[in-house]
Amino acid sequence: MTTGVRRRMGVEERRQQLIGVALELFSHRSPDEVSIDEIAAAAGISRPLVYHYFPGKQSLYEAALRRAADELAGRFLEPPHGPLGARLLRVMGRFFDFVDEHGPGFAALMRGGPAVGSSTTNAMIDEVRQAAYEQILAHLEIERPSARMELVVRSWVSLAESTALLWLDGRRVPRGELELQLVHDFAALTAVSAAYDAETADILVRMLADEPADGPFGDLVGRLVELAPRVPAQRLR
Amino acid sequence: MTTGVRRRMGVEERRQQLIGVALELFSHRSPDEVSIDEIAAAAGISRPLVYHYFPGKQSLYEAALRRAADELAGRFLEPPHGPLGARLLRVMGRFFDFVDEHGPGFAALMRGGPAVGSSTTNAMIDEVRQAAYEQILAHLEIERPSARMELVVRSWVSLAESTALLWLDGRRVPRGELELQLVHDFAALTAVSAAYDAETADILVRMLADEPADGPFGDLVGRLVELAPRVPAQRLR
Repeated sequence: MTTGVRRRMGVEERRQQLIGVALELFSHRSPDEVSIDEIAAAAGISRPLVYHYFPGKQSLYEAALRRAADELAGRFLEPPHGPLGARLLRVMGRFFDFVDEHGPGFAALMRGGPAVGSSTTNAMIDEVRQAAYEQILAHLEIERPSARMELVVRSWVSLAESTALLWLDGRRVPRGELELQLVHDFAALTAVSAAYDAETADILVRMLADEPADGPFGDLVGRLVELAPRVPAQRLR
Repeated sequence: MTTGVRRRMGVEERRQQLIGVALELFSHRSPDEVSIDEIAAAAGISRPLVYHYFPGKQSLYEAALRRAADELAGRFLEPPHGPLGARLLRVMGRFFDFVDEHGPGFAALMRGGPAVGSSTTNAMIDEVRQAAYEQILAHLEIERPSARMELVVRSWVSLAESTALLWLDGRRVPRGELELQLVHDFAALTAVSAAYDAETADILVRMLADEPADGPFGDLVGRLVELAPRVPAQRLR
């Protein structure tokens, strides 16, 4: 038996505790499957008390998502020094850390659905996408992207999301491989656009200019050059 | 004044008419913004009669989505003849036709949200993705894809979705350019994976083997080779 008086938490402290408990539960099961009863039990308080701090599951869910979204956006921050490929690779490592830690919650969120597809949650997801987009532009030192370059960057952000989601479904490819692959995919999608657009070509050339031969971009080009002889020569014009 | 007796529609015929009317309205505005009253008015029947055929907006919405999903999956069908790049380009043309015709409905659906993110609609979207995935494997003559190749194809399908969605938001890049870009992106994402995986490398080589120099893949490689001299030589090892 304990004899001490249990310390009373302040309102904000209790809210933060409940958010933490919810995020921990969502990291193992989809939010749809986690009840307020479970959250109350894990936090060591009564169900009605949970409702005292959050009027409903949706509001607790949105508060948890708010914290997760801020944390994820924070992981995109990378000092603007050194080769771009290495920077992007570090960010991808932290992104997959996040996806790894929040697996089922991340998957449920990105797949939408009854409990999680509210306009509030969709707006928060868009905020994180926007943060990723702006970080990349900042690293590329692009102030006013052309419509084509904007599309390249935004579609790559979406590719990173879907690659992470596909990875979570079975984890059949080592995540380190996918982190590197996404860095390469960024260069590849930029190169495709650069082949047809002079402005993007300038960005690509600048992107590769500071890249060491043993960095992710140099390595990719080297390997593709090795593959080239296997394609009949006339295909390369 | 009309004197004739208006022909009575059968149940199934009336249902199909309402689905068609709904899809037409969803092609101009998001399903969230379209009321049953409007659908009734556009179909020339009373609101209660709509409910006679569909118990609620959600069921009409799902029936409309069913028809649209089947139609979209049908557009992926392409005879297995000729160079792969040209086949994929034709499919992309039909995909963008669909996106163009169903703009706001497509956008609302893919973005999820309160009215459209039900588990039924999500399952239908996954069916269409699966159909696209299977078509591509069939064209590549792959019966049992490796985990890496599966990821390349599925993530490209998702890239095609997000590229179409980004295009719909302002249509600032000509759609023909994006259709071609997506074909190139497929080759580029496959090449990235091929650089690190022997099985994917075999598929890439096979994919390019029948490709004419003036087809989309040959053209891309040619343009990239032209860009290469602008990157310092040591970057290419």
